[in-house]
Amino acid sequence: MNGNMMFQPLLISNLIQHAETYHGDTSIISKNTDGSITQSNWAQVAQNAKRFANVLQSFGLTLSDRVATIAWNNHRHLESWYAISGSGFICHTINPRLFPEQLIYIINDADDKVLIFDKTFVPIISQIKASLTKVEHFICLDADDAIVSAAIPDVKFYDALIQAQSVNFAWPEFEENTASSLCYTSGTTGNPKGVLYSHRSTVLHSYAISLPDSFNLSAHDTILPVVPMFHVNAWGTPYAAAMVGCSLVLPGPMLDGASLVHLIDQYKVSMALGVPTIWQGLLSAAQQLNSRLDSLERNVVGGAACPQSMMEAFRDVHQCETLHAWGMTETSPLGVVNQLKAKHYDLAEAEQFKLRFAQGRPPFGISLRICDSENGVNEVQRDGKTTGHLQIQGHWIVNTYFGADKTALTSDAWFDTGDIATLDQDGYLNIADRAKDLIKSGGEWISSVELENIAMSHPDVEAAAVIAAIHPKWDERPVLIVKQRTGSQLKASEILAHYNNKIAKWQIPDRAIFVETMPIGGTGKILKKDLRQQFGSILLSV
Amino acid sequence: MNGNMMFQPLLISNLIQHAETYHGDTSIISKNTDGSITQSNWAQVAQNAKRFANVLQSFGLTLSDRVATIAWNNHRHLESWYAISGSGFICHTINPRLFPEQLIYIINDADDKVLIFDKTFVPIISQIKASLTKVEHFICLDADDAIVSAAIPDVKFYDALIQAQSVNFAWPEFEENTASSLCYTSGTTGNPKGVLYSHRSTVLHSYAISLPDSFNLSAHDTILPVVPMFHVNAWGTPYAAAMVGCSLVLPGPMLDGASLVHLIDQYKVSMALGVPTIWQGLLSAAQQLNSRLDSLERNVVGGAACPQSMMEAFRDVHQCETLHAWGMTETSPLGVVNQLKAKHYDLAEAEQFKLRFAQGRPPFGISLRICDSENGVNEVQRDGKTTGHLQIQGHWIVNTYFGADKTALTSDAWFDTGDIATLDQDGYLNIADRAKDLIKSGGEWISSVELENIAMSHPDVEAAAVIAAIHPKWDERPVLIVKQRTGSQLKASEILAHYNNKIAKWQIPDRAIFVETMPIGGTGKILKKDLRQQFGSILLSV
Repeated sequence: MNGNMMFQPLLISNLIQHAETYHGDTSIISKNTDGSITQSNWAQVAQNAKRFANVLQSFGLTLSDRVATIAWNNHRHLESWYAISGSGFICHTINPRLFPEQLIYIINDADDKVLIFDKTFVPIISQIKASLTKVEHFICLDADDAIVSAAIPDVKFYDALIQAQSVNFAWPEFEENTASSLCYTSGTTGNPKGVLYSHRSTVLHSYAISLPDSFNLSAHDTILPVVPMFHVNAWGTPYAAAMVGCSLVLPGPMLDGASLVHLIDQYKVSMALGVPTIWQGLLSAAQQLNSRLDSLERNVVGGAACPQSMMEAFRDVHQCETLHAWGMTETSPLGVVNQLKAKHYDLAEAEQFKLRFAQGRPPFGISLRICDSENGVNEVQRDGKTTGHLQIQGHWIVNTYFGADKTALTSDAWFDTGDIATLDQDGYLNIADRAKDLIKSGGEWISSVELENIAMSHPDVEAAAVIAAIHPKWDERPVLIVKQRTGSQLKASEILAHYNNKIAKWQIPDRAIFVETMPIGGTGKILKKDLRQQFGSILLSV
Repeated sequence: MNGNMMFQPLLISNLIQHAETYHGDTSIISKNTDGSITQSNWAQVAQNAKRFANVLQSFGLTLSDRVATIAWNNHRHLESWYAISGSGFICHTINPRLFPEQLIYIINDADDKVLIFDKTFVPIISQIKASLTKVEHFICLDADDAIVSAAIPDVKFYDALIQAQSVNFAWPEFEENTASSLCYTSGTTGNPKGVLYSHRSTVLHSYAISLPDSFNLSAHDTILPVVPMFHVNAWGTPYAAAMVGCSLVLPGPMLDGASLVHLIDQYKVSMALGVPTIWQGLLSAAQQLNSRLDSLERNVVGGAACPQSMMEAFRDVHQCETLHAWGMTETSPLGVVNQLKAKHYDLAEAEQFKLRFAQGRPPFGISLRICDSENGVNEVQRDGKTTGHLQIQGHWIVNTYFGADKTALTSDAWFDTGDIATLDQDGYLNIADRAKDLIKSGGEWISSVELENIAMSHPDVEAAAVIAAIHPKWDERPVLIVKQRTGSQLKASEILAHYNNKIAKWQIPDRAIFVETMPIGGTGKILKKDLRQQFGSILLSV
């Protein structure tokens, strides 16, 4: 017997309708590609989304056609998202930092019919355009511009397109499992793989990330997603912001520390989200600019582990609570967030702080387990010590990659994340390493992440990476790559001595190498693959 | 094209599994029928739920069979809920304060196969048992008791039943729109009508009520649902508590102020939920017992408007934030909660406080409109002034009453709530009155709620109700019924003078009548229907 309640599909268009109706005058602040600021609000975003939906309709697209975006976090990009998914098309967000051949592969693989882009990306698009045989419409997210028209002859301009359209558009209703958006993984091996989100998965994810024990989002908040909209949908915040009616500050292309300090202080940002490299820049700039970041109550760190020194700086200098979180493209992305439980508040403050370095625990809707092999179904103990392969299930977890003919899951329907981790009895997750970044020395595993965290705790170290170098006797040994702070005179012997008494002797890296710049990937992470290529054989040549 | 994400049905069994796995040691405090306290936790609740699921399975029930409960808020009742719905049966919660003939009607109408009850209700059940021809199993939520066995010869006892069963039970998976629970409205006219909730509606409602701008529930919280589990599922809190892993304090049968003060202070309750009459008792008892209710951060008031004096007492004496909320059996119940927005914090404190008297604004998942007639589709202005018929849509709103052959909705699929209300531009709802409680005097409407609030602001008034009395000239005129505080010597002329300069002269009640006791219904509300019967013709006899 079914319940006798109303049935309504969970649709992304409901999110923008809710924001328009109940939070119409709530600010959307947007930094444009030219650095100017546009002040808008949810009502205007909703109206422009409907105008742009009329534009897309005029192109004759049909349900589930792909519309690609290569754009910064800004209001036009936000409007286009709601227009695309709300219309029943698939919003394909593309990382502009990919190589040209990767861009061509992704756009053709997705069968994108429309390509929307910010001016910043005109050079790359004009370079690859001839290879994008399936794209029928190129739209620059800006006002008319002769230079852009010269570079991309048949380009259309967003502002002119929407100005020609009515704000009247009835969001269509369709089945909630319909695909809503598409994001390709950065793909460290082989071609990038697409994750195809649905309306249902996106709306349920929005509820989950807004909960008090997740990002705690409300209409009191002004949030700054520094994490790009092309990187797992800015961790879902543009959807959740509409759900709860919070204000958004969209930083556009300027992600340097000083620009972020100005945005936080001027628009009273209460929460910001990004990767550790972003926070490093923010903390330095805040110090230089003498800003206390007074409005900032909390920041979310994902993408990589947050060094202890960074978390302490946020807490002690800025009275800002740093929340560790973990997820990936395949998990929409929220897997876990680190929020303490009631019982933890009885602990001493130092003990509480230590707990914050775990990645966190899952919201309702996510299940985790640690198995003894990546295809395995044997769970290891949840004792906070036993490591194994992290696997995940939930309403917003990938099932099959876009276009793939076989499942991405284990035989019993879990997704293996590729991470090595522990779980404790409360369900707190601790990521030890990526499975592929573990170092196997003489049959024993060494965690590269642990070695990096120790290096990062040295005041002269700005960035650190530990790789597995091939070793004639031990198979692999850890090698530390360091970028030191400007003006530092750190020696290899000193940084290696920094490991003494912190870990077992046999785990200390064999070598420390100083570099001028770290290779950084499209999502702000250090490209260990490149470092392995460059330094992976260095112990052989001794 | 569908998204390629995992599909899992939204099921109530997932809630208890989540609480068991990630919040196993979080306390569940329960006051038993005999006044003793049982300390349990989510892991034990989950285990006993599985044991009781095995009991129900041994009865040979089939999917969607109804299992009724007549019980207080306690741990056994909580366990039985998860066992019943988690197994795919329908948990039919019954209000024990109904008249015997109403209980018989409801139990037979629902076709209940099993009846679960607390000892308190042995007398009424033994009285009506002969009329309950379809009930096959009577289960007392307690240990074996000879007196109960004597009164109900074939009774079984919960404790013995579950002790005989294994904790191994695999929660079955079924379609998420399957019915999960059933609650009858109090039914002021005609027979009570059943609202049949689904697993999907319950889980989505749990997400929505846990949001920061709803009840703001997290694993930091210890919540005390004073509102009974038989009254719209204790406003959904037993489900949401499992979702977020908060601690529960279940007050059993003792809902007097002193008992609640002791529970709040002893178990450090952070949030409590109930109707105004409960809070009146709590505030008086806290004063007498000299308790500051230090742990209580917020309380939710629903069921009736919260008098200003009460909200001020919570704020000023107890530093407790009072949240107005509105809903009904047909809305699961959450329609709106009053949480302020960022812009309101720029207002003076007194202005902010005034805003808190609206019922609130809807979470994502609910839409509201005010129409010019109860069947009408013409929306009136959202100006905070224009009153009309409140209508609602959403994932957890009734569609059709249990067993009814026609929809409960308007021609365009909205549910008319029977309330007269305004909406403002931010979506804040203000209930003016129940449509049936409005007083029509000489063609002009007078709100009984407004007149009651003014009476309640007089320090000598403990309870007040305003009814429409038949009038030979004006059709209807307001008559005020007052219960004064013990020891007060209030005169009718004084309480009527209290209205001067607060409202227009023609709206002041014609008469004030003092009563020793107010007729209170099963859900703690004043039964205006009874007052109208008693006093509705009083102006004719002048």
